[in-house]
Amino acid sequence: MNKSITYKILEKNLVKGTVKQGQEITVKVNQTLTQDSTGTMVYLQLEALSPNKIATDFSVAYIDHNTLQTGFENADDHEFIKTICAKYGVIYSKAGNGICHQLNLERFSKPNTILLGSDSHTPTGGGVGAIAIGAGGLDVAVAMAKGTYTLIVPKVLNINLSGKLNKWISAKDVILYILKILTVKGGVGYVIEYTGSGVKELSVTDRATITNMGAELGATTSIFPSDEITKDYFVRQGREHDFSMLVEDENVLYDKTLDINLSNITPQVAKPHSPDNIDDVKSIEGLKVDQVAIGSCTNSSYTDLMKVARILKGKKVHPDVSLVISPGSSNVISMLIKNGALNELINSGARILESACGPCIGMGQAPKTNAISLRTFNRNFEGRCGTKKAGVYLVSPETAAISAIKGILTSPKNLDTDPNISLPEKFDVSDSFFIFPNQTKYKKIFMGPNIKPFPLKEKLQNSIDKKIVLKTGDNITTDDIMPSNAKLLPFRSNVPELSKYCFKTIIDDFNVRCEKNNGGIIIGGDNYGQGSSREHAALVPLYLKIEAVIALSFARIHKANLINSGILPLVFLSKDDYLKINENDDIKIENIINDLNSSSKITITNLTQNYKFDVLFDGSKRDKEILFEGGYINYLKNMKEGENN
Amino acid sequence: MNKSITYKILEKNLVKGTVKQGQEITVKVNQTLTQDSTGTMVYLQLEALSPNKIATDFSVAYIDHNTLQTGFENADDHEFIKTICAKYGVIYSKAGNGICHQLNLERFSKPNTILLGSDSHTPTGGGVGAIAIGAGGLDVAVAMAKGTYTLIVPKVLNINLSGKLNKWISAKDVILYILKILTVKGGVGYVIEYTGSGVKELSVTDRATITNMGAELGATTSIFPSDEITKDYFVRQGREHDFSMLVEDENVLYDKTLDINLSNITPQVAKPHSPDNIDDVKSIEGLKVDQVAIGSCTNSSYTDLMKVARILKGKKVHPDVSLVISPGSSNVISMLIKNGALNELINSGARILESACGPCIGMGQAPKTNAISLRTFNRNFEGRCGTKKAGVYLVSPETAAISAIKGILTSPKNLDTDPNISLPEKFDVSDSFFIFPNQTKYKKIFMGPNIKPFPLKEKLQNSIDKKIVLKTGDNITTDDIMPSNAKLLPFRSNVPELSKYCFKTIIDDFNVRCEKNNGGIIIGGDNYGQGSSREHAALVPLYLKIEAVIALSFARIHKANLINSGILPLVFLSKDDYLKINENDDIKIENIINDLNSSSKITITNLTQNYKFDVLFDGSKRDKEILFEGGYINYLKNMKEGENN
Repeated sequence: MNKSITYKILEKNLVKGTVKQGQEITVKVNQTLTQDSTGTMVYLQLEALSPNKIATDFSVAYIDHNTLQTGFENADDHEFIKTICAKYGVIYSKAGNGICHQLNLERFSKPNTILLGSDSHTPTGGGVGAIAIGAGGLDVAVAMAKGTYTLIVPKVLNINLSGKLNKWISAKDVILYILKILTVKGGVGYVIEYTGSGVKELSVTDRATITNMGAELGATTSIFPSDEITKDYFVRQGREHDFSMLVEDENVLYDKTLDINLSNITPQVAKPHSPDNIDDVKSIEGLKVDQVAIGSCTNSSYTDLMKVARILKGKKVHPDVSLVISPGSSNVISMLIKNGALNELINSGARILESACGPCIGMGQAPKTNAISLRTFNRNFEGRCGTKKAGVYLVSPETAAISAIKGILTSPKNLDTDPNISLPEKFDVSDSFFIFPNQTKYKKIFMGPNIKPFPLKEKLQNSIDKKIVLKTGDNITTDDIMPSNAKLLPFRSNVPELSKYCFKTIIDDFNVRCEKNNGGIIIGGDNYGQGSSREHAALVPLYLKIEAVIALSFARIHKANLINSGILPLVFLSKDDYLKINENDDIKIENIINDLNSSSKITITNLTQNYKFDVLFDGSKRDKEILFEGGYINYLKNMKEGENN
Repeated sequence: MNKSITYKILEKNLVKGTVKQGQEITVKVNQTLTQDSTGTMVYLQLEALSPNKIATDFSVAYIDHNTLQTGFENADDHEFIKTICAKYGVIYSKAGNGICHQLNLERFSKPNTILLGSDSHTPTGGGVGAIAIGAGGLDVAVAMAKGTYTLIVPKVLNINLSGKLNKWISAKDVILYILKILTVKGGVGYVIEYTGSGVKELSVTDRATITNMGAELGATTSIFPSDEITKDYFVRQGREHDFSMLVEDENVLYDKTLDINLSNITPQVAKPHSPDNIDDVKSIEGLKVDQVAIGSCTNSSYTDLMKVARILKGKKVHPDVSLVISPGSSNVISMLIKNGALNELINSGARILESACGPCIGMGQAPKTNAISLRTFNRNFEGRCGTKKAGVYLVSPETAAISAIKGILTSPKNLDTDPNISLPEKFDVSDSFFIFPNQTKYKKIFMGPNIKPFPLKEKLQNSIDKKIVLKTGDNITTDDIMPSNAKLLPFRSNVPELSKYCFKTIIDDFNVRCEKNNGGIIIGGDNYGQGSSREHAALVPLYLKIEAVIALSFARIHKANLINSGILPLVFLSKDDYLKINENDDIKIENIINDLNSSSKITITNLTQNYKFDVLFDGSKRDKEILFEGGYINYLKNMKEGENN
């Protein structure tokens, strides 16, 4: 059979099962990455699993999220991660080194390998032809401990690129254009595989921008071939030895195909409050802008910032605009210093922030009340920027830069400077912010007072009697379930504190409702749990004794996180049942274990309205076993030596 | 009579009174500066006074404190200040431009003038031979509205410098050495005037480091002569037209004199938790260091950071150390970029933060629990760094840099590189972050939901019956009274919110006590209200209905702030009375207005312990009138047209 890139890599790394769509397989994980906000929990879990040493080729712990450090909590967490890295032989990337995905692409990415990361934008690595999957923290901890990851073989959606981008149109416009077509649900259940003559028109960092924001399509991951352009990138990074070729076979039979002609793409903008609320920049050009933020794992590469510098050179940021730039890595800054670009940015009046995620995750730079904020980032969910009453518009770096000068949303189409950026022959590759396992000696694990044990569930009961404590609409994000901002990020390893803020963007008293009812059940609409990979969106409901979420459909990572937490993710068989059920209804689920053992259908009784309806559990036998045990940690703990996870 | 520098400037700018020690005079204020944390309140007050336009030569509003922006509040406050600057013709310095004192020194400082600033480190301007005084925000608002400032002519303490600094010993070591001798109370009531042959050994930024941290001596201000070295600085800044000579007459009769031989000074360190807890670096050398922070208005000049870069060049920051650097201004960064120094800093593993106050005011970079943090800053009060259980040590940039490499406190004495930094022929002077009055058009004032009206008092009653709601020890800082950290700074224009945190470092329920007792009276020890110029340390007690503070002695700015807020600052005549009085005692003060009109002595009855004692009000007739009216705003409002404030 002619093989897709995706299947080739899965087969190369197969440990168990058959690479056939819909089958459960176990694959070798070559690399893992964590960031600090999800990382503390991952390493608490790794410590619970206590391997002798990590089982991946190597694993990296990046510090890029909680870098403002407005209290002791962040620095304590960083020290905790640093000491546990020393214990298990994990590479530690100090704060200031840059954004995990940008750094991983530069320094560690490798075609033909599998990377698992505890961050939803891990697919950035797909830019070099790796399968790079964002997963729940527990999956990453297990991958470090056991070296493997178990997944259902996804469908493959082929995006066939032709043509050539017009002047000042960039990769960001491409992915926004795709989001317009596919929406935030269009990628669910798929790996998106890019092929076609248009691939050659995109640099590695362009490709990485596209695979990065494939997360917003809901895709398992996105991937580009590894070709001569990839090779050129590795040579310039001084890592030719990590390069290998990877192209799809001819005439692959994909599950779905989309043809896109790059030359048709115009500057695009995602309007508030969803990354698929896309319009042409032209159609809302002239919108007054208060803030422009450039950076994030989507758009902070050398090339992106060089284009920005070229546009800002000799110009002055509009007096009514605050322009902030967070470069992707210390090496990017270093190169921008050497060629004078950083000075051009500062001389134009740009605020240069530390190389980190920063404002993309609401870590600072919250705009003013009712502000219009243009951002080169990947998400524009309501409130994520730190200001509930602000409107965030996602654009390319080119659109952001020209708009910062003009003070209004402006298309870069008519810029008269030259858009071609030549790459440095050798990229800077300083190691100063890394601590490699051989450079450090393990003494003991540092545990600050902010680190609390993670919650565990009891074994699943055969019958559940609970109240519907919340009913939501469609497209609920993990940001809705467990808000994340500069004030809350310090508590990622303190679930009891976090639980006070669960669903806060929707209702004020979710935690109180749960406490009053000794837990409960949540009703969700379509695409429940989209967005960030945030494991805490499952761990906090677990802590609040949520037994099940019944929804029209689930986002992939969140569903896995719910299962890992021992919370039942159930799907309505009929939309009418979703419409009929009300908040505060008392419901009863009986014979759960028996039903799950024999089928995937469960019958639920609505005691308040006095009717029955059926729901589906769409998961594997292994998923069911995890749920029976009350979550993945319990499952692993109870697993006999030598058994495969 | 032979005149000191101080008297020369006061006489040159005299509006009313006689320049004679102890006399009340009114002087012209040439310039004012505000920063954003005190600034919102200043501009609310300016708006209440509503002048047609500002009466100073010019005034500058800097944004340098609340630059993290973890919620909408900061950006709202910045926009408020920006719009009010447009209304009254104030120069606006956008976030990212740098630290007010560093920028003001570079761009606006002027020998022979008077600068009033709503920040306690305003004396930085003394480095070029200006009288630069930190004052309460209200004084600054009045200076902008009326062009004048009223003060008691201070005593002058002459520090006569001789000799020459040894290699790698710097201005920071000089001021720490002086703090060892004089303590945090040693400057109270004085202007500190530097003279002698040693002056010629210090650059303008060295001098500014010394006058800056004169604030920690409790001095009204500190000042250096304006000489050939000053002229050279102005020439390099492209501002020769702003230069004028200023030297003291021969044989001036100073109120006090201190001789210091620069060649005797060794590397110094201020240990936790007071800037006068000084030791030789040598005596505690080897202390394990977790964090090193370089920057702040004390030590972030071009020369300071060039020395740091020279020490770090080709070296790597110790794996156990987080080194953060916040350059003083965008122009400093720009020069460090051009000569390669910034790259050397990054290549060594230094985290480069935005050019702002940053960690010095607890705005980020809180170290881990129980950390040892070396900082080139000016204050090491407990908790100010954001981590209550950390120990902050104040050192020179040279000591900080070498210690960051070694991972332990290390004296820079034996460094073998060359400590001489040559200045650029022309300093960078980009205007990109400034909005000058002619570049903007006033539309309307932006008021975000976080800006609340400031509290006002009623006229002073002739009799007060209140409970002692708090009794403190000596050296209570304005940080103790009104803590300031990244979480609280956004509420500087929201006094009701702030009041919940009043005295939080000492007791948990101060606001509750005040609410329960309908206000009260505070007992303070020696040097009550030292530290930052924080007007909120008076405004919040005013809001909580504090009627009087009775202390052994007061820090100058805080006392003025209490008077401006209509709160009686009273001094015990006998220490025994301080020792005898207890928390929760009920006391009665009768005949206040009559007593103050006829003398400065007031008799107080302790109703609980049943005895009487006398206290002193040490203030001018004008101070008394302000208290009678219930504060300065009331006083100004009730003043007849044409009267002098």
